[in-house]
Amino acid sequence: MNSSDLPRFDTVDLIRAKRDGQVLTDAQIDWWIRAYTSGHIADEQMAALAMAIFFRGLEPRELRRWTAAMIGTGERLDFSGLGWPTADKHSTGGVGDKITLPLAPLVAACGVAVPQLSGRGLGHTGGTLDKLESIPGWQASLTNERMREILRDVGAVICAAGSGLAPADKKLYALRDVTGTVESIPLIASSIMSKKIAEGTGALVLDVKVGSGAFMKTADQAAELARTMVGLGTDAGVRTTALLTDMATPLGRTAGNALEVRESAEVLAGGGPADVVELTLALAREMLAGAGRGDVDPADVLASGKAMDVWRAMITAQHGDPDAPLPLARHTEVVRADSSGYAASLDALSVGLAAWRLGAGRARKEDPVQAGAGVEWHVRPGEAVRRGDPVFTLHTDTPDRFEPALADLADALVIAAEPPAIGPVVLDRIG
Amino acid sequence: MNSSDLPRFDTVDLIRAKRDGQVLTDAQIDWWIRAYTSGHIADEQMAALAMAIFFRGLEPRELRRWTAAMIGTGERLDFSGLGWPTADKHSTGGVGDKITLPLAPLVAACGVAVPQLSGRGLGHTGGTLDKLESIPGWQASLTNERMREILRDVGAVICAAGSGLAPADKKLYALRDVTGTVESIPLIASSIMSKKIAEGTGALVLDVKVGSGAFMKTADQAAELARTMVGLGTDAGVRTTALLTDMATPLGRTAGNALEVRESAEVLAGGGPADVVELTLALAREMLAGAGRGDVDPADVLASGKAMDVWRAMITAQHGDPDAPLPLARHTEVVRADSSGYAASLDALSVGLAAWRLGAGRARKEDPVQAGAGVEWHVRPGEAVRRGDPVFTLHTDTPDRFEPALADLADALVIAAEPPAIGPVVLDRIG
Repeated sequence: MNSSDLPRFDTVDLIRAKRDGQVLTDAQIDWWIRAYTSGHIADEQMAALAMAIFFRGLEPRELRRWTAAMIGTGERLDFSGLGWPTADKHSTGGVGDKITLPLAPLVAACGVAVPQLSGRGLGHTGGTLDKLESIPGWQASLTNERMREILRDVGAVICAAGSGLAPADKKLYALRDVTGTVESIPLIASSIMSKKIAEGTGALVLDVKVGSGAFMKTADQAAELARTMVGLGTDAGVRTTALLTDMATPLGRTAGNALEVRESAEVLAGGGPADVVELTLALAREMLAGAGRGDVDPADVLASGKAMDVWRAMITAQHGDPDAPLPLARHTEVVRADSSGYAASLDALSVGLAAWRLGAGRARKEDPVQAGAGVEWHVRPGEAVRRGDPVFTLHTDTPDRFEPALADLADALVIAAEPPAIGPVVLDRIG
Repeated sequence: MNSSDLPRFDTVDLIRAKRDGQVLTDAQIDWWIRAYTSGHIADEQMAALAMAIFFRGLEPRELRRWTAAMIGTGERLDFSGLGWPTADKHSTGGVGDKITLPLAPLVAACGVAVPQLSGRGLGHTGGTLDKLESIPGWQASLTNERMREILRDVGAVICAAGSGLAPADKKLYALRDVTGTVESIPLIASSIMSKKIAEGTGALVLDVKVGSGAFMKTADQAAELARTMVGLGTDAGVRTTALLTDMATPLGRTAGNALEVRESAEVLAGGGPADVVELTLALAREMLAGAGRGDVDPADVLASGKAMDVWRAMITAQHGDPDAPLPLARHTEVVRADSSGYAASLDALSVGLAAWRLGAGRARKEDPVQAGAGVEWHVRPGEAVRRGDPVFTLHTDTPDRFEPALADLADALVIAAEPPAIGPVVLDRIG
């Protein structure tokens, strides 16, 4: 973090260079990232550069170096001596996206270790750690040594990313969040990939969501982000592929912390919603192929119950009780269909906002979440519905949240006379 | 400064709106400027918005409101009861630009009061206050009451702008300086005009410089800035015009603090360089016309010696001694012509940088300046020169500065076989 041994550049000159469309050199990028991380470059200067990057972008070479420089500000994990090949998954975030929960134990049960460093949720998309923390006793924080032990013994670990990985990204992400510079493909790609590369996984699959409930609203944007991230991972020696997957409709039948743990356990038990099973298997196949175990069929392993065994061991290793009852919200409210027909569409963003308002998510980093809060939807697009049928159940500990959540859901479900055409969950593959 | 009585907006939403090309409402702009000035909006957020404005611009209505909101953060002077009409001049800054010094007393001698709030120099362009402070005893800071008294009794006052005028601009200007967001026409225009409108002048002439030594390198940029500022002034009820003037060549024959005071006194005594006299008279005519005294010919008044009388009274009123010898630098060095012919061009930026390095200017706000430092040039474009003639004299108290200053001047003067075509100082008029 000592930048005194680096050639020095003028901070304002570099901002102006990027602002005016010039390409930064490797030495300039290395200096900038180190100087920002160590506090020699002020937040207002990084904010100005980030906005200039929003408008001007980063060339592939600049982006590779930017990502490498962020990794270089912290530690890099190494699981090469583990005895298992490793693979990880990253999702750009969606509504009802509990896929990590069944996926990590399933892939481990197939013989590939999954070192999954996760985050908490912000806004309408949930966070994997928030979901797991609804399991009584489960703890998100592990030392690197303990993470390695669990990985070796159990094969899968889902835990909080320590502050040691890419601290530049941690600082920059917080700044982008308050300066309107989140929505930049090179900044998003380098943020995600710096952490995933530093995490030391051998293979990586990216689940890039598209649609109303996703960060990327169009397939073109999502494909560009996916290609950018696959390029960064591949250049860094991580076998990386990406699936573009649908997030116009929320995944499964629930959005909320304990609600989604329950649904995940159903999948591991051989049941669960078809779309969650389909996406879990598709991502598992990518991870296994990337880790050199493309010969294993994860559908067979899921059916065998071995993935459930790994799940139970994984939860237990982090002090969770897989047999303890999951928390329930204190209050529920049912919404009924006002007409008969077929569910034509269910808007992911509306459902995500409703779950967030009910207490499943947080508006600010420091807010708590409610373990039991969230939304269940009893019909998915394509299913028949009759007037008076329950279509949503809302769960919360704070009943004053029902009203705003109901407003979010007012137009979320469209009922039509004819059944709609239902598309696949996986829209495209890049890599 | 209390923003609690204003409607509240989300800071990040407003940054994103401007970033995405939307037009901000009056209420949003009012809230933003007040919240920034009072510290509710962080510097990194203002930096991001400033960079977004660099790329997206401000519509005329947004810019008017932005300027008015900055004025609204501070006090507004009022000279309407003074008994004199008022007029002021603002220059966008050039090399050897001492015009304010003869201009203010000349216009006052013509019957129009000049309330000139000035600044100090930064970088290669000098500051009017730095020049006047080379006069023994002269003090830049005045109370508003004392400023008004001098204006009433003498007719002209040049003093430091207090912190009461447009404090939002003061804060924003310092931020733009370190975030690469200076070069934005709406931000430049609103910065200048907020202070000039708050200053309470009835008429205003803008001297917008064009060329290597100016901030605006092309006539198109300068004309856009001039039109933008004239529009802002006119909309605010200030009779505003602009002259586009040449800054490819430095003005007069000297750049430096005491050096330029001496040259200004020569102009007031009826002599001085022809270009300085020409520009002083052109700007005086604009100010007099704006103040309703277009009947007075400033050339006659200059010849009468009355402007010199006002100068002496003006300096005396601020504790300066107009008869005291001006400081001289301790060391000088002469540069001689290495060929014979005609001076074809003299580069303003090179001369400005040399004067700055010799100690006439400052690199940082808190640096001191040397009263005697600077550059004299003994030939102007169009004049004949013989090999061995002195072409520059460099002045400094710190002789280690000679070498870098000589490097700046190495290619500054071009000598050609034929005399060049010499253009006018005033290139265009807008208003």
